[in-house]
Amino acid sequence: MGKNGQGAEHHGSEFTAKDYTDPPPVPLVDVEELGKWSFYRALIAEFIATLLFLYVTVATVIGHKASTDPNKVSTEVVSCGGVGILGIAWAFGGMIFILVYCTAGISGGHINPAVTFGLFLARKVSLVRAVLYMGAQSLGAICGVALVKSFQKAYFNRYGGGANSLAEGYSRGTGLAAEIIGTFVLVYTVFSATDPKRNARDSHVPVLAPLPIGFAVFMVHLATIPITGTGINPARSLGSAVVFNQERIWNDQWIFWVGPFIGAAIAAGYHQYILRAGAVKALGSFRSGSHV
Amino acid sequence: MGKNGQGAEHHGSEFTAKDYTDPPPVPLVDVEELGKWSFYRALIAEFIATLLFLYVTVATVIGHKASTDPNKVSTEVVSCGGVGILGIAWAFGGMIFILVYCTAGISGGHINPAVTFGLFLARKVSLVRAVLYMGAQSLGAICGVALVKSFQKAYFNRYGGGANSLAEGYSRGTGLAAEIIGTFVLVYTVFSATDPKRNARDSHVPVLAPLPIGFAVFMVHLATIPITGTGINPARSLGSAVVFNQERIWNDQWIFWVGPFIGAAIAAGYHQYILRAGAVKALGSFRSGSHV
Amino acid sequence: MGKNGQGAEHHGSEFTAKDYTDPPPVPLVDVEELGKWSFYRALIAEFIATLLFLYVTVATVIGHKASTDPNKVSTEVVSCGGVGILGIAWAFGGMIFILVYCTAGISGGHINPAVTFGLFLARKVSLVRAVLYMGAQSLGAICGVALVKSFQKAYFNRYGGGANSLAEGYSRGTGLAAEIIGTFVLVYTVFSATDPKRNARDSHVPVLAPLPIGFAVFMVHLATIPITGTGINPARSLGSAVVFNQERIWNDQWIFWVGPFIGAAIAAGYHQYILRAGAVKALGSFRSGSHV
Amino acid sequence: MGKNGQGAEHHGSEFTAKDYTDPPPVPLVDVEELGKWSFYRALIAEFIATLLFLYVTVATVIGHKASTDPNKVSTEVVSCGGVGILGIAWAFGGMIFILVYCTAGISGGHINPAVTFGLFLARKVSLVRAVLYMGAQSLGAICGVALVKSFQKAYFNRYGGGANSLAEGYSRGTGLAAEIIGTFVLVYTVFSATDPKRNARDSHVPVLAPLPIGFAVFMVHLATIPITGTGINPARSLGSAVVFNQERIWNDQWIFWVGPFIGAAIAAGYHQYILRAGAVKALGSFRSGSHV
Repeated sequence: MGKNGQGAEHHGSEFTAKDYTDPPPVPLVDVEELGKWSFYRALIAEFIATLLFLYVTVATVIGHKASTDPNKVSTEVVSCGGVGILGIAWAFGGMIFILVYCTAGISGGHINPAVTFGLFLARKVSLVRAVLYMGAQSLGAICGVALVKSFQKAYFNRYGGGANSLAEGYSRGTGLAAEIIGTFVLVYTVFSATDPKRNARDSHVPVLAPLPIGFAVFMVHLATIPITGTGINPARSLGSAVVFNQERIWNDQWIFWVGPFIGAAIAAGYHQYILRAGAVKALGSFRSGSHV
Repeated sequence: MGKNGQGAEHHGSEFTAKDYTDPPPVPLVDVEELGKWSFYRALIAEFIATLLFLYVTVATVIGHKASTDPNKVSTEVVSCGGVGILGIAWAFGGMIFILVYCTAGISGGHINPAVTFGLFLARKVSLVRAVLYMGAQSLGAICGVALVKSFQKAYFNRYGGGANSLAEGYSRGTGLAAEIIGTFVLVYTVFSATDPKRNARDSHVPVLAPLPIGFAVFMVHLATIPITGTGINPARSLGSAVVFNQERIWNDQWIFWVGPFIGAAIAAGYHQYILRAGAVKALGSFRSGSHV
Repeated sequence: MGKNGQGAEHHGSEFTAKDYTDPPPVPLVDVEELGKWSFYRALIAEFIATLLFLYVTVATVIGHKASTDPNKVSTEVVSCGGVGILGIAWAFGGMIFILVYCTAGISGGHINPAVTFGLFLARKVSLVRAVLYMGAQSLGAICGVALVKSFQKAYFNRYGGGANSLAEGYSRGTGLAAEIIGTFVLVYTVFSATDPKRNARDSHVPVLAPLPIGFAVFMVHLATIPITGTGINPARSLGSAVVFNQERIWNDQWIFWVGPFIGAAIAAGYHQYILRAGAVKALGSFRSGSHV
Repeated sequence: MGKNGQGAEHHGSEFTAKDYTDPPPVPLVDVEELGKWSFYRALIAEFIATLLFLYVTVATVIGHKASTDPNKVSTEVVSCGGVGILGIAWAFGGMIFILVYCTAGISGGHINPAVTFGLFLARKVSLVRAVLYMGAQSLGAICGVALVKSFQKAYFNRYGGGANSLAEGYSRGTGLAAEIIGTFVLVYTVFSATDPKRNARDSHVPVLAPLPIGFAVFMVHLATIPITGTGINPARSLGSAVVFNQERIWNDQWIFWVGPFIGAAIAAGYHQYILRAGAVKALGSFRSGSHV
């Protein structure tokens, strides 16, 4: 049987002792970080990334709707000419892919208050950092949507401003549940991709992490655009609500904060208490059919 | 001619002796694993992953059909507004990508009884593990589809509940063959991606494996959605059959168990007896045009 | 200025001497390889891979056309319901991605006589291997298309059998040129991805190679489906011609052999005589803006 | 707290001292490089890559428009049969992915005067190299579009020649701003992907860099095709303007040079003065929630 056979478990435990260490929980208030330039740089990076996220995605939504509006026969664009709901889902997922890739080393690449909240619950970021990140993200989102509005004055209001709301025929409970599960998918992927045990045996994982994280966003959009337009990111929902500013949108806004925060909390709990309880033993177990 | 030229074969055989060891076959019943938390954690992970898989994919199918139903002119969604068959294929492939990525280190990332069956035949998982995985997957699939039904009461039944069945004009033999080949493509990719020889020379492969595995699912959906709706995953077919629960669906259900299991068995045999018989010698041979 | 600054060029040349060796040209007839099981295994792998390639891609083409035929209103599939030309392009590119990934370590992952021809010209495979690969690929392609025909009897002939031919309004010269350039894009990517210099400094490249190779196929299909249906793979064109078997298709068949072989030869020459003439010095130079 | 906890910052600074060195700024005129074959090879590679980029992308645009023109009912292609705006966006992004992948080790993989300009401002390429690259890119682009025109004589002019111009209803300021932000997204991704600090801790990043860079191009096209057709690459805009050669296109041409150059300059400044000011400390901080 030797080392390789029954050693999977062994290897795992030796591993625990040697190859990686979980970083200790971050304090709620980390005074030291407030004195560092890197902290403020992280806030700037979150602001810019969320701004770009909303700018590109909402512009895609508005452009798609303008291109496929049967009442507005464009001479520039042929019929059936928008990027489609599929293109919109790609815009959200693809932007998260590149923005997480670009900002991972600067701010951790959250770009989403629900992700920040989940990482705060897992004690990976301090309370102060979490609150300021959410502020930077919300402000960035508002600015990004405002840019789209300034570019697309006529279309922006006509085509709904990219705002999240419940589609007709769905109850508030359904919308809330859809946001909870959607955010769970995203934050669960974030935790899986950034688990230190995974990194210990496979040091390039952080670089690959942005791709599955982006895909998680893409997938959830495919599933729930017809229900809520897909929030799973309170900054995204707030940004378009502030700029579009209609009563119906504001009435539904709570769904897009409560749902993602609950989903993120469940994902954090699932990862910390179920999956990490007995240790991951990383991906090596994959090839041998996972007899971990 | 020296070391690099004719040494490919040599290098390969030295390699066999030194750089990796095939893990010994897993026993049919591994009593030890039943006493470990990691075993139950793996069952939970398979349950949750299959639940999320069915939730997102079936919601995408129902949402697409609701968005493109000519009888139901939505005021929210423009015509030609669904994610398309292409979007549905992406949902199945993309979810497998992220879920295999997230669960690979916990349960091996099967999320599919046919994959579990293939790995059992190759003696990579014990019989007990295989049976319990299939149970967890089936239960997860049922819960995932039930969630969609609870969210989309009106649409769920009208649009077929995401259930697999033979399309009009195709014989049972054709449907069965389509499922066999489709599952072969998937399980062949799983075996290729997780081969220990591959890993020995290229330790980061396990991390990359989820992408081609997800793409395999995507590709098969492009090809066979018009024939069977594409099963290649008995849990997926069972879950939607249980929740949709119509006679026609149940009559075809055997196709979506027999087909995938045969396909997985052929893939396991192809990999173990043809491809592994003379050793893989890994990817290094790729660059030199594969004179292995 | 030290070692890192002006040393880029230096590092490059030291590198040439130490870190990698171009394998010597493979002999035209390598008697030794004929005695090895790994050689026959490679032929089997090329046969199976090309079979799966044609099966999935042609099934996708036929399924798409059946789903969007205005004369055949399907009750199963909504209008606008095919995977689209975009889905077809994904099927070709995505299958090449996973099949190159799966067979790279077994046969080198050619799956295309034009790729085999290019690698033969660069003396990476022997003449005997090249000829037998092309035979296995052609046979596999015929079997793959025959499978689709047996599954889709009625639709196969009605929707053109996935065969390549010149679209109306394009001259033979245009079709030939489109095939030449398209195959150049593919074979140039293959050479870039498998260059030993690249591998020397970055040993995981062979694993990543399948993705850009698959994307190259995807891209060329986006561009030239309206012109020739896109061949860039003589086995693919031959397989569908043999099974579809119409005079018009056979009249154009030469284009899909001559074009790809010329394109592959130009790519081999470009890589060997222009790009490799002064050495690649690999990707390290990328970050510093390539002052190689 | 030990080494892992509060050591993130420490580790970072030790790192600065040991693991990597920013290459010194490249001189404006580097006489030495003019004497090397590798310099001319890089020019050839930029020429060929930009040619292939324009050939594939403009052919995709023209083919899409021909396939969906309601006035030209093709018997070959079913209605709704083009690759869609989504397919066009993929063509631009996907080509950049494979061409950056193929040419990164030869020329740095710019394929875009705005990228060259940004890297020149950051002193990563000499003035002479920057000017000659832009020349090679512009010439390549013209040749690539000319190839499409020679293949598609009838359609090329009818469908706009793939040229960039302001869509109706948008002001010049909006078009200019859209080009600035779009190019910012691209060049910011290029800087993030090729940062030497990132590479120091994660040596395979350069290989992965082409994927997010390609996705950045894909994303920007989704957002701004309806506004300007999306330039963000002056060579691309010039090439189609020269071959299409209409007054309206020439009147807007300045937007597609001024916008991308401003966007690239802002991205270079953002990266050099904000993000790099306090050092990146790479991706390791990602998993611990980025308390850098």
